Amino acid sequence: MKIALIGAGNLASHLATALHRKGSVIVQVYSRHFSNAEALARKIDAEALDDLSQLDSSIDVLIFAVSDHAIPTLLECLGRRNDSLLIHTAGSVALDVFRAYSENYAVLYPLQTFSKAKPIDFSEIPVFIEANSEAALSKTKLLAGMLSDNVREANSQQRKQLHLAAVFACNFTNHLYELSSQLTEAAKLPFEVLLPLIRETADKLRTLSPHDAQTGPAVRNNWQVMEEHMRLLEERPDLQKLYELLSESIIKRHLL
Amino acid sequence: MKIALIGAGNLASHLATALHRKGSVIVQVYSRHFSNAEALARKIDAEALDDLSQLDSSIDVLIFAVSDHAIPTLLECLGRRNDSLLIHTAGSVALDVFRAYSENYAVLYPLQTFSKAKPIDFSEIPVFIEANSEAALSKTKLLAGMLSDNVREANSQQRKQLHLAAVFACNFTNHLYELSSQLTEAAKLPFEVLLPLIRETADKLRTLSPHDAQTGPAVRNNWQVMEEHMRLLEERPDLQKLYELLSESIIKRHLL
Repeated sequence: MKIALIGAGNLASHLATALHRKGSVIVQVYSRHFSNAEALARKIDAEALDDLSQLDSSIDVLIFAVSDHAIPTLLECLGRRNDSLLIHTAGSVALDVFRAYSENYAVLYPLQTFSKAKPIDFSEIPVFIEANSEAALSKTKLLAGMLSDNVREANSQQRKQLHLAAVFACNFTNHLYELSSQLTEAAKLPFEVLLPLIRETADKLRTLSPHDAQTGPAVRNNWQVMEEHMRLLEERPDLQKLYELLSESIIKRHLL
Repeated sequence: MKIALIGAGNLASHLATALHRKGSVIVQVYSRHFSNAEALARKIDAEALDDLSQLDSSIDVLIFAVSDHAIPTLLECLGRRNDSLLIHTAGSVALDVFRAYSENYAVLYPLQTFSKAKPIDFSEIPVFIEANSEAALSKTKLLAGMLSDNVREANSQQRKQLHLAAVFACNFTNHLYELSSQLTEAAKLPFEVLLPLIRETADKLRTLSPHDAQTGPAVRNNWQVMEEHMRLLEERPDLQKLYELLSESIIKRHLL
């Protein structure tokens, strides 16, 4: 399989490095910023491009690892590529975005959060695949299997829902970490003191459901503490609002 | 040090087990439910009580590991105990709750989430201590040092703020896990597919600040995806409200 990679951002970098390590050949890397394409291409012995017309015509698989809204624009520029399997990696983009552009297309969605500065072990990441044909599916399965030991099929609707679940479980969670770091800072204590708690909260899910793992003043219906917390947040009405809404949501699910 | 433990709940059990393992002698365990006191006392070779008047008068240290609002009531029943060091373990209760009841009193607050079903390594848990006298402080430091390698002093105001930070970093975070499990369930996918993502989100904080670790549609200001997520949540107005508020909060901190 001769692969070209469209994109050189966080996900593209992690994907390219993982595939390269497994012996996959990525021949070209495209980014509209040549320097980004070059930086990634150098790591995996590929050619860097900032012009889609220079894509090798013998490419078997074209992987789009770009932001959601860039996919339709890039396809427009690229035109029809009947001989290539087109794959995107986006949680919220439907499979049929490719319909007008090839006979064979698929999605390969790794359910993970990628930051450039942090290396990641791809093998444990759940990868969700979907394809428009048996041929596309089997090729995509092969590719996904090189990356991860945890490959499943999911249709576009399931994938969208997964992406939404991931926003709650990861993006919003990380934002709560940021808010809590502002609170430790206000107490002149380093954020690091929260790390064992944060790790244990995530780790508990190995043995308990999140429902059974719930602790804290809301689930104990401890109004004195909740009221005192609201007072402590008097100068942070934004945090008060979140505190109220999240506590109500816990109470609704545990006590009503 | 002859120790008595008031309480037999989650925190009391973890504390008692950890102290017992380190060779500390807990002679009595009190709970208003005798069966609870007995179950814990059996594990650590202590005497079980459900009557405070039976507390041994030669007890050096009395540790209260009970819910916040139970502390004043128990102290009332107990009366003045000038010869004992009184210690509580609550995030949101001030040190001076003990003022009328002894000459020496302290707080030993382990910043962690405790569930009965899950054993825990106490040594990495940050423990925050505060005391009213040098004598009380040095005894409490000794006790805390047996439990944890990470002991710090913090006053009552800092401890309250820490507890509040912990509600955001742990209790609210865990609730987001529960909400995300409802979303995977709705997609007929097992919650377990989110676990690598959840672990990585927590793990990232070893190398990145939560601010730098932020990913997702809000921090990319991706309105198409956010609007689609709001549509997907049409039948869950409670989740829509949280989605909106948390996304706004991310945008405020990253883009404005």
